Amino acid sequence: MKVVIDAFGADMPEEIVKGAITAVNLIDEVEIILTGDKDKIQKVFDEIGYTGDKIEVVHAPDVISCDESPTMAIRRKKDSSLVAALDILKNREDVIGMISAGSTGAVLAGGLFVIGRMEGVKRPALAPFLPTVNNGKTLLIDCGANVDCKPEYLRQFAIMGSIYSKAMLGIKKPRVGLISNGVEDHKGNEQIHQTFELLKNEKEINFVGNMEAREMFSGDYDVLVCDGFTGNVAMKAAEGTLNTFTSVLKSEVKSAGLGAKIGALLMKKVFKKLKKRLNYTEVGGSPFLGIDKILVKSHGSSKAKTIYSCVLQVIDIHKSKYIEKMREGIKNSNLAGE
Amino acid sequence: MKVVIDAFGADMPEEIVKGAITAVNLIDEVEIILTGDKDKIQKVFDEIGYTGDKIEVVHAPDVISCDESPTMAIRRKKDSSLVAALDILKNREDVIGMISAGSTGAVLAGGLFVIGRMEGVKRPALAPFLPTVNNGKTLLIDCGANVDCKPEYLRQFAIMGSIYSKAMLGIKKPRVGLISNGVEDHKGNEQIHQTFELLKNEKEINFVGNMEAREMFSGDYDVLVCDGFTGNVAMKAAEGTLNTFTSVLKSEVKSAGLGAKIGALLMKKVFKKLKKRLNYTEVGGSPFLGIDKILVKSHGSSKAKTIYSCVLQVIDIHKSKYIEKMREGIKNSNLAGE
Repeated sequence: MKVVIDAFGADMPEEIVKGAITAVNLIDEVEIILTGDKDKIQKVFDEIGYTGDKIEVVHAPDVISCDESPTMAIRRKKDSSLVAALDILKNREDVIGMISAGSTGAVLAGGLFVIGRMEGVKRPALAPFLPTVNNGKTLLIDCGANVDCKPEYLRQFAIMGSIYSKAMLGIKKPRVGLISNGVEDHKGNEQIHQTFELLKNEKEINFVGNMEAREMFSGDYDVLVCDGFTGNVAMKAAEGTLNTFTSVLKSEVKSAGLGAKIGALLMKKVFKKLKKRLNYTEVGGSPFLGIDKILVKSHGSSKAKTIYSCVLQVIDIHKSKYIEKMREGIKNSNLAGE
Repeated sequence: MKVVIDAFGADMPEEIVKGAITAVNLIDEVEIILTGDKDKIQKVFDEIGYTGDKIEVVHAPDVISCDESPTMAIRRKKDSSLVAALDILKNREDVIGMISAGSTGAVLAGGLFVIGRMEGVKRPALAPFLPTVNNGKTLLIDCGANVDCKPEYLRQFAIMGSIYSKAMLGIKKPRVGLISNGVEDHKGNEQIHQTFELLKNEKEINFVGNMEAREMFSGDYDVLVCDGFTGNVAMKAAEGTLNTFTSVLKSEVKSAGLGAKIGALLMKKVFKKLKKRLNYTEVGGSPFLGIDKILVKSHGSSKAKTIYSCVLQVIDIHKSKYIEKMREGIKNSNLAGE
């Protein structure tokens, strides 16, 4: 199974190359195609002493930065690592999926322009799994691809999220919640009011009603629906709270007595485990649901192990037959032909 | 100084009465007026053995519930504890401010209908102080009063928040951040793009640009501007993350070895302090900025100590001469007359 990786999307391209090496070393069945500046990639190979034949390098020296207009950059920079990777994803039959740590806007624009949407899909959406209190997973859709959404897009997110959740986790009737400012039916802004009516009448999904962002990690919902702006704010607020908690905890231990310091040492393993359980970036990236191939967006500050997790994720998604199930699901629902 | 408290807005009215008793017992200069069912209030007095003369009870047996349409309820239920409290706030010269733990919608509707807006203000907003990593405070405006906002409302929030932050914390040039899905100028949805232009050109404030919800608690901003829907999602996501962290930590300690358990015991004081530092509900409630009197909304699940904190907060706001400063600030800015 071949996975193509855009080596120059992120802050630290050397981490991406290292992640690719880890993946081919640890996963027998996988081969990687890396796109980017061939000399720079070779330099990392040399540093690590990688001489294997499971990584193919495709030279594409241009880089698309966060400051550029995504659409313009995709059209103009044909020699960029991102566009080269997308071309390979599109044209090579044996490539099962792609990973990029580039800016959300650029990866989405590239996915739309080079690969295209599944038939019937109005807007592809970014959909990461979040960890829950009870060791489960909840899908957040949309996490940042579409900052302005019509209620109809949110309805499509609910349907796509349900199909994906069924395919990946085997959940029969994923419970869909709509993120609002309260659980009551009348809560929400104008967009939420209209979306609530659409979801209530949507037979293809198991809509359980409005929910509060407070319940994101409760495990009471399988699919959390929101527009990309709200999804981004919710995720970033959670991230900020986690960072704040950790740093305030550290400062309190620093200024506390010896007892608490010993306590913190004794709890080191627990804290490590906790961090791992709550850090969603460790479990991989987010696929763009609705793009007609497996396209996974990895965190902009991806480390080698994040990229390795993303490769595992692409394989999982491929094995779940998600693309076929999504096409089938879309055909059965009233997405197509509208 | 007299403060009027709606005793029957919240889930636990007995806690509100207890909070009022705590306040008059601990704060010499304060007297309380409680509105609500006189017999039920007397019952709490009897339970606690309160026989003082610093609490006046005004009988108002009706209660406005969360399920009612706020505007209808305010107009119809003249004998409700909320409307009675608002009438007292409006008519008695010696009353410096009011506290209610009722639903945000009902308290806001009541504030607008009975008290009214300050001249020039289009939409009053709910503005709590959040704790920051470095032991400071950041104002979040709007935290849930206005779920649909025009860019012009957000501009007013930025101005009102700056004036309040100056009055309460003595900050000379409060740094105003606009909550978006990235820090770059071009980030955001349509509403944020338009608001960004307004804030950039607003001379009355110190606008430092777009910010991510991740930085809410960083202390790098004094005033965080957003619409009430976004503010609610950000706060609830933070709350949910904190709860998740605590409960996952507990479960990890439970399943860990003896060492970690002893560690947790040794760290008990640190955890308690941490909880206190991060739990914003302990520090009081949120004022509605832009209402022409001091009107503080307390948490729906307020405990006695929350109400006590709210009384201290009303006194602080009163002493800061915020109402006068806000009127003056609005006059100087281009809010009035538009």
